[in-house]
Amino acid sequence: MSPDDLESVADLARQLRVDSIRCTTAVGAGHPTSSLSAADLLAVLVTRHLRYDWADPKRPENDHLIFSKGHASPLLYSVFRAVGVVSEEELMTTYRRLGARLQGHPTPILPWVDLATGSLGVGVAAAVGIALAGKKLDKIPYRVYSLCGDSELAEGSVWEAFDKAGYYGLSNFTTIVDVNRLGQRGPTELGWDLDAYAARVAAFGCHPIEIDGHDLGAIDKAFDEASGADRPSVILARTIKGKGVPEVEDKNGWHGVALPADLAERAIAALGGPSSIVVTSPKPERAIPAITPDPNEEITLPHYSIGDSVATRKAYGDTLAALAARPEVVVLDAEVGNSTHSDEFNKVAPDRYFEAFISEQLMVAASCGLAVRGYVPFAATFGAFFSRAFDFVRMAGISEVSIHLAGSHAGVEIGSDGPSQMALEDLASMRAVNDSTVLYPSDATSTAALVASVANRSGISYVRTTRGSYPVIYGSDEEFPIGGAKVVRSSPADAVTLIGAGVTLHESLAAADLLAQDGIVARVVDCYSLKPIDSTTLAAACAATGNRVVVTEDHYPAGGLGEAVLSALVESGLSPRLTHLAVSGLSESGTPAELLDHAGISRNHIAEAARALISN
Amino acid sequence: MSPDDLESVADLARQLRVDSIRCTTAVGAGHPTSSLSAADLLAVLVTRHLRYDWADPKRPENDHLIFSKGHASPLLYSVFRAVGVVSEEELMTTYRRLGARLQGHPTPILPWVDLATGSLGVGVAAAVGIALAGKKLDKIPYRVYSLCGDSELAEGSVWEAFDKAGYYGLSNFTTIVDVNRLGQRGPTELGWDLDAYAARVAAFGCHPIEIDGHDLGAIDKAFDEASGADRPSVILARTIKGKGVPEVEDKNGWHGVALPADLAERAIAALGGPSSIVVTSPKPERAIPAITPDPNEEITLPHYSIGDSVATRKAYGDTLAALAARPEVVVLDAEVGNSTHSDEFNKVAPDRYFEAFISEQLMVAASCGLAVRGYVPFAATFGAFFSRAFDFVRMAGISEVSIHLAGSHAGVEIGSDGPSQMALEDLASMRAVNDSTVLYPSDATSTAALVASVANRSGISYVRTTRGSYPVIYGSDEEFPIGGAKVVRSSPADAVTLIGAGVTLHESLAAADLLAQDGIVARVVDCYSLKPIDSTTLAAACAATGNRVVVTEDHYPAGGLGEAVLSALVESGLSPRLTHLAVSGLSESGTPAELLDHAGISRNHIAEAARALISN
Repeated sequence: MSPDDLESVADLARQLRVDSIRCTTAVGAGHPTSSLSAADLLAVLVTRHLRYDWADPKRPENDHLIFSKGHASPLLYSVFRAVGVVSEEELMTTYRRLGARLQGHPTPILPWVDLATGSLGVGVAAAVGIALAGKKLDKIPYRVYSLCGDSELAEGSVWEAFDKAGYYGLSNFTTIVDVNRLGQRGPTELGWDLDAYAARVAAFGCHPIEIDGHDLGAIDKAFDEASGADRPSVILARTIKGKGVPEVEDKNGWHGVALPADLAERAIAALGGPSSIVVTSPKPERAIPAITPDPNEEITLPHYSIGDSVATRKAYGDTLAALAARPEVVVLDAEVGNSTHSDEFNKVAPDRYFEAFISEQLMVAASCGLAVRGYVPFAATFGAFFSRAFDFVRMAGISEVSIHLAGSHAGVEIGSDGPSQMALEDLASMRAVNDSTVLYPSDATSTAALVASVANRSGISYVRTTRGSYPVIYGSDEEFPIGGAKVVRSSPADAVTLIGAGVTLHESLAAADLLAQDGIVARVVDCYSLKPIDSTTLAAACAATGNRVVVTEDHYPAGGLGEAVLSALVESGLSPRLTHLAVSGLSESGTPAELLDHAGISRNHIAEAARALISN
Repeated sequence: MSPDDLESVADLARQLRVDSIRCTTAVGAGHPTSSLSAADLLAVLVTRHLRYDWADPKRPENDHLIFSKGHASPLLYSVFRAVGVVSEEELMTTYRRLGARLQGHPTPILPWVDLATGSLGVGVAAAVGIALAGKKLDKIPYRVYSLCGDSELAEGSVWEAFDKAGYYGLSNFTTIVDVNRLGQRGPTELGWDLDAYAARVAAFGCHPIEIDGHDLGAIDKAFDEASGADRPSVILARTIKGKGVPEVEDKNGWHGVALPADLAERAIAALGGPSSIVVTSPKPERAIPAITPDPNEEITLPHYSIGDSVATRKAYGDTLAALAARPEVVVLDAEVGNSTHSDEFNKVAPDRYFEAFISEQLMVAASCGLAVRGYVPFAATFGAFFSRAFDFVRMAGISEVSIHLAGSHAGVEIGSDGPSQMALEDLASMRAVNDSTVLYPSDATSTAALVASVANRSGISYVRTTRGSYPVIYGSDEEFPIGGAKVVRSSPADAVTLIGAGVTLHESLAAADLLAQDGIVARVVDCYSLKPIDSTTLAAACAATGNRVVVTEDHYPAGGLGEAVLSALVESGLSPRLTHLAVSGLSESGTPAELLDHAGISRNHIAEAARALISN
């Protein structure tokens, strides 16, 4: 950096500090001290290294900047002001206020923000996905910068991220760690021991660069070194929390606290007062991504014949293989691709198949990163193990990105592996996520149709699949709109409605056969779409059968199919007499049929519940 | 090891291999090859290092053995046979069958199993909690051994565990990594690169020991070295998957597959055939834990006066401080103790306060480990961030241990921090967990009573607390049974029931005031216990008010208070006309009052919904 550059970057850093203080004190909330520690890092990055066309955030060649330490939003928004995309008025009068784009933690409501952050360890993991897109799919040289706090490095997901960045050789990935030594409630575990962090970073396959985070020249060289490295890089910057405001520098008790007005005034004056420096970032060179999405590419869905015995997880894999015809579709695995059948995609499109090993958090986060670049990610593991990544799914819902998840081995149906492998809480957790779609098909044909549909759907989709093979019940001409339900069996004499999804649809059909032996005619409804749910079809069935409904699910009682159906019926103005069969208590080992029975959700239980409704 | 010892340990290893093959082939399922790779490690450990009184698994001095790679259950159960606590018949005829203790993955239904494993990265993290108990609380010299797979080391939670074991100087913690190079679907990321693992382990504060995992002498020395280390130790054992059965050794495609009968027969014969060696483990020396639980110790709950403005999170902290009088109560923090108010406990009992830094997974896992040793752990973070640890909570539910969680900063009520910090899915996910209790008190008095109650409650409890301060509405003489609800306002003229919990109880009370201005009298119910739920009180209120109910929650619509109430009412045989108000769509920044209104759950919305019910 020339002396002139040095001076102007220092001026920018001062402005970023002043603005971080001003906007937080104005609203009386926010994290100024966590912003002040990283101001010098950002001043150098934005003016000299980040190749970004601020006027056109959609340009594919732009570098990416992710504030994984989302609480440093005052600094990010001050940067936005300095590059001219956010006005002083917006910064000073809207930050953290109702209706503002400048929220307490960044969300993609702002066009320069890729993903929502604020839950620590999320942004840096998503950055792996963007870097993967750049290196392996787009094949254009954008870089991905993420800013982490040092406290944040206690999250295991950060190490999953560094490990995978190293494994995939993502030399376009740079994390800057703002090592300011103080967390929310006191000193961090490792303090300013940069060597300790460096040993960890190097051991996880990344190139560590230790610097004084307030030395502009050193910061500049570090970014050069990072760009030149043949590996992902992690800049470990020793910084001072509150840097630039001596009264709070390196002092505990100032985390997440706006400076009082008088202190802010003194601090701003000492920093030279407000300014209106406008800077530009280096522009990226024009480049064309190697992959052009083609969402209209026709897909030939796999065909299954009625009566064939096929697992829905196999149909999931077959459909992924069909979707491979669309160049934007990518698939992620957490080391169970031969169980989820994701590996069917690997057979036909290995270049777009990414192995996350057993890192479910990273798998979901990387999916989000790939979605940022316009790819359509499908990620699968056992439904039970998506619970490991639940915060990442939640944050994806806040980002409102489009990712597609498939949880296999649902419920007690899996058999002898036992309760640790059984997804019995997934419908509840996935239904609760913002912007989510939750599907649970019962046969191969409907699975294929629904998996193909979600590829075009926005938001978080979750498809629950079953381990065992069950008969195909639908013909290939059948349509399965998301938000629909199928009346699988009906007659004018129906006395009760049996509602199931997935394996319990098959049990409900078998229960209807049992009831027929007693002369009881049952309507059977396949509620394959839990969210959105087909209130119309469900309500019509309920009304037509004297409000008698048995809903059965291979899931714990709370938050799943039963409560979804009940809510839909009551919202439709009905007064259902509803018996809800769900898994009670802890399951164990056994055959699928034994465990369905043990859990109280087998055909016999359904038939018995129906008889009880009718006789009362 | 003397030549005699060596020979007898080798014989045991052969038997463990034979039994691992026999029990899996007999049932046609399970993971023999993942058991064979670790048989030598276990043979040495169990005969020469694990100090364990197999006749008395409750002895506090016993070492602990955790199969974090729970799928190697055939090996664990073969060990149980070899030490004489499981019969050959039980092993051969019950493994993985209905009603068996010997399930596909270990659970504490077996007295020698501390915790359920099978979701990878859980056991090793829980081991930190047990080691912490030994070192910091019991102060007796038991050791904690956990067995991990190499694939498992991709889970970030493993590194959270090693980091905290190092931070707390847990020299009684030893993890054995069975580096057999093959995961479920192919080679692991690092293969047999023990040096790469060792660098990571050392950087995370543990002592790595690299050995050939089939060299009995080397294994023996490694355990000696681990016992003598002044730090936690990680034994990195290079092993061969399927070791002992040349036809499958180091071959892909044999994960989780029982050997076919003919291959099993050949393999067993080559290993010398079945045997019935019985071994003993070294006995632990008598020792007395430094802490004796005293659950009957009288607690003086904090007192709050009606009308005072107190945050329920503050009442949580105050109550923890009161509970400190019981020596078995311990508190864990994930670096937000000054927000959750867990730090009130730290002020009075710092020796029983454990900082997990920002590692929510480790915090929950360590809580489980502490519970194994009879401690009563309370762990808190923002409710939103328990989503990070959801798999650990799920697995705790399968272990049926007793841990107590408190999620603060619930809902949009938190204000300007924005959606990433808002718990809006926690009630759904926590209700879905096996053996869970879910509470959401609205004032300081009820919070104190409920937090004190859960200290004596088994299973997973979750108390949701609120950021802001609200009026105390209950007197100190009021009782709050778990599973209860309070009718806060009622009269014979009530035309509608308003049900709330937490902040929405206050909004419901305010709505009742608004309705009173229109001459509408509303009953108000505080549904502070979501699971179990007070069907009787809710049904009585519903029936008394013409079935008109407005239930309001600061949570997404699925799986929370609304669906819990609806299920309770319909199960009670009622036909409620229920309007469910919940957070719709994405929240943002603003004041608490603004965001409640923006989300559609404020007093005005409640009053409007009540009017609509009455006028229809």
